[in-house]
Amino acid sequence: MAGEEPYPRKILQYMEGFLVSKALFSACELGVFERLQGSQWSASDLALSLGCSEDGMERLLNTCVSLELLTARTDPHGAVVYSNTEMSSMFLLKSSPRSLCQSIEYSSRTIYLCWHYLSDAVREGRNQYEKAFGVDSRDLFEAMYRSDEEMVKFMHLMNSVWNICGRDVITAFDLSPFRCICDLGGCSGALAKQCVSAFPQSTVTIFDLPKVVRTSQQHFVCNQDERICFCEGDFFKDELPQADLYILARILHDWTDQRSVELLTKIYQSCRPGGAVLLVEALLYEDNSVCVCVCVCVCRWSCAAGGGSSV
Amino acid sequence: MAGEEPYPRKILQYMEGFLVSKALFSACELGVFERLQGSQWSASDLALSLGCSEDGMERLLNTCVSLELLTARTDPHGAVVYSNTEMSSMFLLKSSPRSLCQSIEYSSRTIYLCWHYLSDAVREGRNQYEKAFGVDSRDLFEAMYRSDEEMVKFMHLMNSVWNICGRDVITAFDLSPFRCICDLGGCSGALAKQCVSAFPQSTVTIFDLPKVVRTSQQHFVCNQDERICFCEGDFFKDELPQADLYILARILHDWTDQRSVELLTKIYQSCRPGGAVLLVEALLYEDNSVCVCVCVCVCRWSCAAGGGSSV
Repeated sequence: MAGEEPYPRKILQYMEGFLVSKALFSACELGVFERLQGSQWSASDLALSLGCSEDGMERLLNTCVSLELLTARTDPHGAVVYSNTEMSSMFLLKSSPRSLCQSIEYSSRTIYLCWHYLSDAVREGRNQYEKAFGVDSRDLFEAMYRSDEEMVKFMHLMNSVWNICGRDVITAFDLSPFRCICDLGGCSGALAKQCVSAFPQSTVTIFDLPKVVRTSQQHFVCNQDERICFCEGDFFKDELPQADLYILARILHDWTDQRSVELLTKIYQSCRPGGAVLLVEALLYEDNSVCVCVCVCVCRWSCAAGGGSSV
Repeated sequence: MAGEEPYPRKILQYMEGFLVSKALFSACELGVFERLQGSQWSASDLALSLGCSEDGMERLLNTCVSLELLTARTDPHGAVVYSNTEMSSMFLLKSSPRSLCQSIEYSSRTIYLCWHYLSDAVREGRNQYEKAFGVDSRDLFEAMYRSDEEMVKFMHLMNSVWNICGRDVITAFDLSPFRCICDLGGCSGALAKQCVSAFPQSTVTIFDLPKVVRTSQQHFVCNQDERICFCEGDFFKDELPQADLYILARILHDWTDQRSVELLTKIYQSCRPGGAVLLVEALLYEDNSVCVCVCVCVCRWSCAAGGGSSV
């Protein structure tokens, strides 16, 4: 946009962010990437095959082309045909080992709607599951785990996150000195698996709520690796297992500073001499960039200071 | 994210687009930029003043800093205080002549929720006002204009769009040869005002639905400029005024190809010899970039071909 007056490009881009998210989410939900895998389709054939409106499908496909999620070309008969990009084939197919599909579905159906009420969340200082889904939301995890089905969906979200960046997170530090590891809120066990794979001498206890542990054993950690075990409990109410290293991956952001200090104090008291905490969070840096930050803090502070690394 | 495997940075960014949108929307809705104008506040003072949770406010403010909508600095007493950026002062205050606030409110409360049902929209090939707001949605504009209040909100959205880029759109071509101009679906008259300001010899007829015309006269075109007049009607059902130039600004994207051809045919029949159509739409280019495109097509094709320009 030429002209002498300043143009709010950045603000307009932010305003359109949700349109971009939903275009990606819908293409995924409707099965566009699955159907295009290994072949190319016209908008009308794809619409027919997926039970969609032709006009709607064509608009969605062209949006995906502009987002570089699909490519379009004109075939010898003059028809425009669409195919997956390499990136889409790698991350947007349900069957891909590094699939983001379940994470996308959860974002689209649950998180998107909760965030519709962000202003109320900031006013009230609490989550908005009640407005979004009509469920009592005093306890965030009671709301998120309101049914086995909902719990499995959330666990798939966490699982896909660690399938993408778990290895980088786990190998940001040499954790081999820590043989006995406890992953607090370890959920589906994806990070535990990365941990024993990267540090074969380690054993990992996944500590989580009883129903999460049961679901994890049923759906996610089926072929039991003997280096991975489970411990059922609520990390605010129950005793923590003793360990050399506690992992808190995407846990502290769910809680207020006060509750976080409470949890870290409990860890300090349960930690073996020379033990440590591995913190994994998305952080805002001074220069405003956001990144996943992995940080090891040695727990028995007499021993050593901590260190940080961003991946 | 280091590591040898490809990392889906772009897809993850798209997935987070709606979080960015809603952070901006909420900061605007809660009055953060208004309160910070001309002074700097701590998160706790701002939370108290705006009736918000301190924890929620601090998280929102830090997000706005990372989006470069606010700046943060530590004051001499060691407290972190926040202030508006130049961009925020220019576009995110309700009183600013180029304010995006009403556009943001409409995006946040109406469009965001409609887009929650994008997959259904693509399946059914129609808008989702029924699911989002429980209103009959066979006619898009009946749904959008379901009350005077809703209509005024939408008109403010259109108004703020043209306050930002209307002048660039209108001056993309020398329109001075066209003295008698008709802005079809001219809504709040923002583009008509830009038009008579840029081309003082022109007169503009704003053609829109009767209730839109009444509201426009009441709220938007109060100090009647005699070069601007109104004509009430439905451009599919009623006769169009004769003119040298018809403006279709953000109109065709609302309709199917068939309906668009129908409208363009009607324009062709009403157009004076040597007349033209000014088309304004966001377009996807071959290289996938999106831009606002202004295009003049000469209507009496015996005279000349059209031209295009992007602003």
